[in-house]
Amino acid sequence: MHPARRAADGLVRARLLGRWSWPLSFDCSINRAAQRDALVSHRRLCTNRARCLNKEYASVNEGFFWTPEAEIGSLLKRHVKHQIRRFATSTKVNRNSRFDSLKTNDMEHFKSIVGAKGVIVDKDELVAANTDWMHKYQGHSQILLRPQTTQQVSEIITYCNSRNLAVVPQGGNTGLVGGSVPVFDEVIVNLGAMNKIIEFDEVSGILVCEAGCILENLDNFIGGKGFTMPLDLGAKGSCQIGGNVSTNAGGLRLLRYGSLHGNVLGLEVVLADGEVVNMLGTLVKDNTGYDMKQLFIGSEGTLGVVTKVSLLVPAKLGSVNTAFFACEDYTSCQNVLKEAKRQLGEILSAFEFIDRPALDMALTHLPGTRDPLPQSGKNFYLLIETTGSNETHDKEKLDAFLESTMEKGFVADGVVAQDSTQAASFWQIREGISEALGKAGAVYKYDFSLSPEHFYKIVEDLRDRLGSDAVVVGYGHLGDGNVHLNVSAREYKDELLEKVEPYVFEWVAKHKGSVSAEHGLGLMKPHALHYSKSAEAIALMERFKALLDPKGILNPYKVLPGTSKTVSTPASALNAESAVVV
Amino acid sequence: MHPARRAADGLVRARLLGRWSWPLSFDCSINRAAQRDALVSHRRLCTNRARCLNKEYASVNEGFFWTPEAEIGSLLKRHVKHQIRRFATSTKVNRNSRFDSLKTNDMEHFKSIVGAKGVIVDKDELVAANTDWMHKYQGHSQILLRPQTTQQVSEIITYCNSRNLAVVPQGGNTGLVGGSVPVFDEVIVNLGAMNKIIEFDEVSGILVCEAGCILENLDNFIGGKGFTMPLDLGAKGSCQIGGNVSTNAGGLRLLRYGSLHGNVLGLEVVLADGEVVNMLGTLVKDNTGYDMKQLFIGSEGTLGVVTKVSLLVPAKLGSVNTAFFACEDYTSCQNVLKEAKRQLGEILSAFEFIDRPALDMALTHLPGTRDPLPQSGKNFYLLIETTGSNETHDKEKLDAFLESTMEKGFVADGVVAQDSTQAASFWQIREGISEALGKAGAVYKYDFSLSPEHFYKIVEDLRDRLGSDAVVVGYGHLGDGNVHLNVSAREYKDELLEKVEPYVFEWVAKHKGSVSAEHGLGLMKPHALHYSKSAEAIALMERFKALLDPKGILNPYKVLPGTSKTVSTPASALNAESAVVV
Repeated sequence: MHPARRAADGLVRARLLGRWSWPLSFDCSINRAAQRDALVSHRRLCTNRARCLNKEYASVNEGFFWTPEAEIGSLLKRHVKHQIRRFATSTKVNRNSRFDSLKTNDMEHFKSIVGAKGVIVDKDELVAANTDWMHKYQGHSQILLRPQTTQQVSEIITYCNSRNLAVVPQGGNTGLVGGSVPVFDEVIVNLGAMNKIIEFDEVSGILVCEAGCILENLDNFIGGKGFTMPLDLGAKGSCQIGGNVSTNAGGLRLLRYGSLHGNVLGLEVVLADGEVVNMLGTLVKDNTGYDMKQLFIGSEGTLGVVTKVSLLVPAKLGSVNTAFFACEDYTSCQNVLKEAKRQLGEILSAFEFIDRPALDMALTHLPGTRDPLPQSGKNFYLLIETTGSNETHDKEKLDAFLESTMEKGFVADGVVAQDSTQAASFWQIREGISEALGKAGAVYKYDFSLSPEHFYKIVEDLRDRLGSDAVVVGYGHLGDGNVHLNVSAREYKDELLEKVEPYVFEWVAKHKGSVSAEHGLGLMKPHALHYSKSAEAIALMERFKALLDPKGILNPYKVLPGTSKTVSTPASALNAESAVVV
Repeated sequence: MHPARRAADGLVRARLLGRWSWPLSFDCSINRAAQRDALVSHRRLCTNRARCLNKEYASVNEGFFWTPEAEIGSLLKRHVKHQIRRFATSTKVNRNSRFDSLKTNDMEHFKSIVGAKGVIVDKDELVAANTDWMHKYQGHSQILLRPQTTQQVSEIITYCNSRNLAVVPQGGNTGLVGGSVPVFDEVIVNLGAMNKIIEFDEVSGILVCEAGCILENLDNFIGGKGFTMPLDLGAKGSCQIGGNVSTNAGGLRLLRYGSLHGNVLGLEVVLADGEVVNMLGTLVKDNTGYDMKQLFIGSEGTLGVVTKVSLLVPAKLGSVNTAFFACEDYTSCQNVLKEAKRQLGEILSAFEFIDRPALDMALTHLPGTRDPLPQSGKNFYLLIETTGSNETHDKEKLDAFLESTMEKGFVADGVVAQDSTQAASFWQIREGISEALGKAGAVYKYDFSLSPEHFYKIVEDLRDRLGSDAVVVGYGHLGDGNVHLNVSAREYKDELLEKVEPYVFEWVAKHKGSVSAEHGLGLMKPHALHYSKSAEAIALMERFKALLDPKGILNPYKVLPGTSKTVSTPASALNAESAVVV
């Protein structure tokens, strides 16, 4: 990926956190130091944000500080005291009283498992581990454990289960829906110290590693051997493969290499009772019984803790080409996608969609951005990327594709990047849209999956509905059916939000879409699950949860809607045993 | 696929049924008429086979005829009376006494659900439905139901569950491990009448259809729209998509398009209590909760009945090229695979392996077969196929690939097919090996997955072990790690078999391979499950089964080892309540 593209992608990630966005750039290489810097920046921007809120608001963090050991709470408060949030309809979560609280004896027991160094009580480290990447969610766990082996994970979970201590499995803590941090005082089990590459077969391309391996490290390791990871994320510098698997991370290569359900060959998982289940197959074909590992892919740590991963990785191909097309209407965009599947079939690696308001956002608010097709003045744009093994062949295909789609009238104008600088400038537009929206004012953001037919209809319908109240912007991964619907306004207003929600969720549900295309549910979206899953499917999810984690100790309050309910509560009404999720 | 290739593939399927093979050609288009013809042929060949058995043998079918209503049994007996089988170590299955038997009232109730036409008691139809494709397994169900809607399936299953009647969900009945036929008197629920295509999106390539749709019909339907199914099997003319999904069918396109776990987007499933679970998503990206459909892919109808399927299908690409390479040693074959992933990356669609004894088998026993590289005289051969969108580009890549791998010394000799006839002649060799082995004499057949390192080592080790007792032949899908290990001998001998088994299973287990690469476990292999799955994984499978089907009515005696045990029993010791699985 071009550095420009990766930087922009970091921003895209940074922006997709719900309807809140912050008009500052973050470095895409998300490490702990960067997180600390971000906290500082964050204070500043939140202060700015507070100025533009004109109605009821409150700090949701108030609900988090409730234990006698309030030191960490105080520290968190210092870091996030300016984080002002407003909520219209939100979800209140109560601490489950079945869970016990940490005792001194527990601490000693954990030391006997992972050693003194594996038990973290350092305040700064706990603050970082309690706070999600976007500083939207903060727990107040008093302990962070860093097991080094599966056996240690097993002993920790066994003990927690027997003691009714709730657990949050944590990887790089780069999730965007609050899935990887405690809600209250859950024990944090961070897999980061389990970061060994176990084996890599250079013939089959099968990689086996521990869950704590950082995605970028894996990509570098196999990159040196001519392979590449089948997924690529803006958070690659921090996110861990165990977390990627647990959240079924999508990312930039999904169109080409498919989802982790197809690429993960095996897992080792620790269940809620501490049992280690070895499903760490290293075979492309294996039809010996139920493919149970699949259930742990995307279950966000609520069914088991992933400790080892086996993956099939593709060969790294050297030729990358990029084009930028303008289309007269959305139907033409669909026709171009159909043609791309035929003509570019085997080399197509990205098919991105940008509408005129989105392009204008980028051109207006991103310094140095230029319209790749200044003469066209159309309403719809496509960014198409190919990746293949032969530069000459790929360019020929892309040129021929542009020519034929123009002849057929699907494409009004188009340009194929002549070098990597030009390609990066195309990507800068696509991946800078989110940043541009942040600069333009208040923004309400949604990440939906919809069929091609409905992919843009939701944008048009919402635009009609809102009229002059806001600018409705649509862009996203048309090739994957993943639309980023954004509502840009001068300021945040409940009246506007009430026109948008639950309208958009109901619209998505009516058209069989997904309310979470790739980020998962975490703590943010369990209440919205019913928009995308049938009642029977949710009931079945609950049966699997009850089977595998009868006490519910693994990542409680996340994914399943059972423990949360929708309320309209001002923060002042919250007490030490409840938290509000916005 | 070339017609020659498909015909040969039909034979490959026909042969992979364990250690029994029959030295006759079957038409690959497996329809009911063909099945009847095959029955006739089968009688003849079984008579021949009986002549070469020199030790204890017995008709396992004796164990199947036990009810007072013996008419169907008699009919089956007429069809299969010459089917002589021998067993050394085999598995005895006892009828589960918890299951009730069919009563007249039940028949009436089923008529009230599916109408008189949906309740089949016709003897010929029951014989076909009771008999597996290879005539290796025969049940003696007295009833076949043909529901036309999911609601009817639900009502049937609800009733069977309440009445403790065991059920076999059945698709095209083309499986090779006895998974799709009754073992005793289970109610057969055939999905064939549910064969409607529900929708197809020509932009996204997402197909939704009922479970009873025949694979070839689907391929033809979407083929007319420029798409192709992501799987292709010799049985495509009969097998149904619901069965494909339930058995996680692999097939010829797996190397290119991956497994069904990546391509199936959604399922509708009827659970053992009759509940319909709608998980029929039509989205490439959807991270809203557990991906539970995955558990039903490959569970062989033991967890639920698949009634509808949603699939992502790829564009059909027009350029297919084939090459045949000779290598000095197995290490060179691995090097060629590594290079192919880089140089042919995006167009590689098959990477097949043939050792010298396998090639010799084909050349000796298949009329009209010629060595594509008569001057080479090497011990290892590769058949490589590419599929892409541009004939010129693909040929250039393949020519360059041959040149570079020869320069590097990986390939000793090679030829790129100049036309489809030459390509078909290459495929004829690869896919005719199984037929040739059948003609050569007695053959013991195994279908394993192993790492590239061990893919051929098992062949060499077994060859050393058997010495002059037999010819050990290795071939298969090296690109997928799927090796077909075959032992060819003049005649079947227990002494030889005892040298082969359990040696090969233990060898595969020791090297972390799979004892069933793509055919599943069915009734044939539950006893071998432990060679490829950990005890904890098997225990977890049993927990899922108990959760979803507490009475065990769905496809009993299959997949899970709990209900069968390994014994050494002559057929004469069997009674009406037990059957022997060879």
